[in-house]
Amino acid sequence: MTEKGKTSALQENEGVSEPETTNKSAIAAIKNKRQQQPSADELVKGILAKDRTALSRAITLVESTNPQHLKKANDIIQQCLPYANASIRIGITGVPGVGKSTFIETFGMYLTSKGKQIAVLAVDPSSTLSRGSILGDKTRMEDLVKNDNAFIRPSPSGSSLGGVARKSRETIILCEAAGFDTILIETVGVGQSETAVHSMVDFFLLLKLAGAGDELQGIKRGIMEMADAIVINKADGDNLKNAKIAKVEFNRALHLYPPKDSGWQPKVLLASALENTGIPEVWQLIEAYLDLTKENHFFDYSRNEQNKFWLLQTIEDRLKTDFYNNPSIKIELKHQLERIENGETTPFAAAELLLGLK
Amino acid sequence: MTEKGKTSALQENEGVSEPETTNKSAIAAIKNKRQQQPSADELVKGILAKDRTALSRAITLVESTNPQHLKKANDIIQQCLPYANASIRIGITGVPGVGKSTFIETFGMYLTSKGKQIAVLAVDPSSTLSRGSILGDKTRMEDLVKNDNAFIRPSPSGSSLGGVARKSRETIILCEAAGFDTILIETVGVGQSETAVHSMVDFFLLLKLAGAGDELQGIKRGIMEMADAIVINKADGDNLKNAKIAKVEFNRALHLYPPKDSGWQPKVLLASALENTGIPEVWQLIEAYLDLTKENHFFDYSRNEQNKFWLLQTIEDRLKTDFYNNPSIKIELKHQLERIENGETTPFAAAELLLGLK
Repeated sequence: MTEKGKTSALQENEGVSEPETTNKSAIAAIKNKRQQQPSADELVKGILAKDRTALSRAITLVESTNPQHLKKANDIIQQCLPYANASIRIGITGVPGVGKSTFIETFGMYLTSKGKQIAVLAVDPSSTLSRGSILGDKTRMEDLVKNDNAFIRPSPSGSSLGGVARKSRETIILCEAAGFDTILIETVGVGQSETAVHSMVDFFLLLKLAGAGDELQGIKRGIMEMADAIVINKADGDNLKNAKIAKVEFNRALHLYPPKDSGWQPKVLLASALENTGIPEVWQLIEAYLDLTKENHFFDYSRNEQNKFWLLQTIEDRLKTDFYNNPSIKIELKHQLERIENGETTPFAAAELLLGLK
Repeated sequence: MTEKGKTSALQENEGVSEPETTNKSAIAAIKNKRQQQPSADELVKGILAKDRTALSRAITLVESTNPQHLKKANDIIQQCLPYANASIRIGITGVPGVGKSTFIETFGMYLTSKGKQIAVLAVDPSSTLSRGSILGDKTRMEDLVKNDNAFIRPSPSGSSLGGVARKSRETIILCEAAGFDTILIETVGVGQSETAVHSMVDFFLLLKLAGAGDELQGIKRGIMEMADAIVINKADGDNLKNAKIAKVEFNRALHLYPPKDSGWQPKVLLASALENTGIPEVWQLIEAYLDLTKENHFFDYSRNEQNKFWLLQTIEDRLKTDFYNNPSIKIELKHQLERIENGETTPFAAAELLLGLK
């Protein structure tokens, strides 16, 4: 605070009052118009006309926790369904530091240069509205974010993986209806979310770095088993030699796994976003995968299986949530766990008792 | 048939009638007594007195599908609980042909020679009453079956792993109450049943053979990750050299996994039932594990976690079974799956609809 009368850099002058010529009724009309939400039909029309604002608004409805928004979202999805599915969905994972954002930027720019319309989504159950999440910082994809043929959307927030997964799957449908033919879905390298993403994509790509004992780390969580391709990233400069060694090791490790239902033998590639090498090869590999799995019908079979999986998964999650959120079961569960710990009852007797309270 | 009157080796003479001195009322009394089933209290008394007939009868009640038998079984288990838990529970797995039965026979004979009272159980969800199962053929454990300090029980039958697992866990309690201090639980090498057995034992032992590309096979199903020890079996004669090489390879592979919650570093041993070598070393290793996990309290912690796991697992299995067995849901589920396949609805919308029918 500065003493009144003294001149200071912090001194505030009195504000200038609003000129009287401003049309107050016009302002009210504009405000009113802005508050009017477009209808489901209007949004669908916008999405099918490739209007990004309509697409973004519809995704916001999908991500909302407001039941009325969800009802509207379901209506929009239902109308978009006949226009969905005509895309390739690619999952991209790797531990933090592996260079996912830079790889996606480079890969995305390459795809748009080939005439592709790409949508980049993220699945990150740890993200919240307030904290930064993967893809939240769009500045890390400077070129792609300005690209007319790319649409980038950060991870929906949510504490449960099931909720985040539902939102992402429905967002895929909306993006496909809006004409995006290549959907890249980024996820963090933390096990469970990878399994969820693997269950919503056609092709699963694992990014790795050479060296530092990292070669076989993927094995411990079964992620390597899910990969259709491993791309050793940052294969440039001094890293190149190690990357080539890692390629041999990964190839050997991949051959230890049983053959995939798709009939596809996973491959290992080298890439460098820095030197812009290896990127066309990644796309060629995905095209070879598409040729194979469309010919042997695994592509459609897998999408159908994924739908079944999400149907059953959603049902079972809800059955559990409903049961454990029942107040009388909450209390008795605590009591039964204590009795089990004291050797006063068995897990099976306690389960019977709790199920009787349903 | 021989012609009447002719003498033949096949000729049958008329039978001798029953002597009249037999006391018919005594026979009826004995028959009546035999048909009378012992009460729950009588069986508990028998179990605690280490009466094998009482133990076997109680296990039969546990394995029954008759609701009255199950009620009686629950009563018996409840009464046995205070006398249970004072044992070490060891899971033993390995693919068919690895020599599980022979290993268990040799290991079991060694344990009884050390004064242990051992119970050998099996978990094999594929076994039925009619078909042969592991341990069904007790002749494969000729010495152990005649041993007064060993009790052998084949796998309970059942089509669901959950059901078989419940029966096995309750049988463990009964065996412990009957004074058996070392419980060996054998399982087949087929993935899911191993996970179930791993969730009911203190120590998990994986039997392996050297050679024939078998070295890293366990990795593909995450079984090696569960093992507290790998025993390379049949490490004798011409196999010995390969077994030693395999030991080095397994040791290297085990070090790729993250440290266990128990603080235990899994070990690899060689054994031969044929030459009776390596068996005391297996027991020494288990004793070292017990020393460590009792001191760091992992032993009790793990048993408590296993109980919680089985409580939640039992509840969730039943919630699902009840839902999917609901006749109106069965019909609508089929319909919704068709609609999903035709792209007329999403898995999430279909799940909402089905949950509404509950």
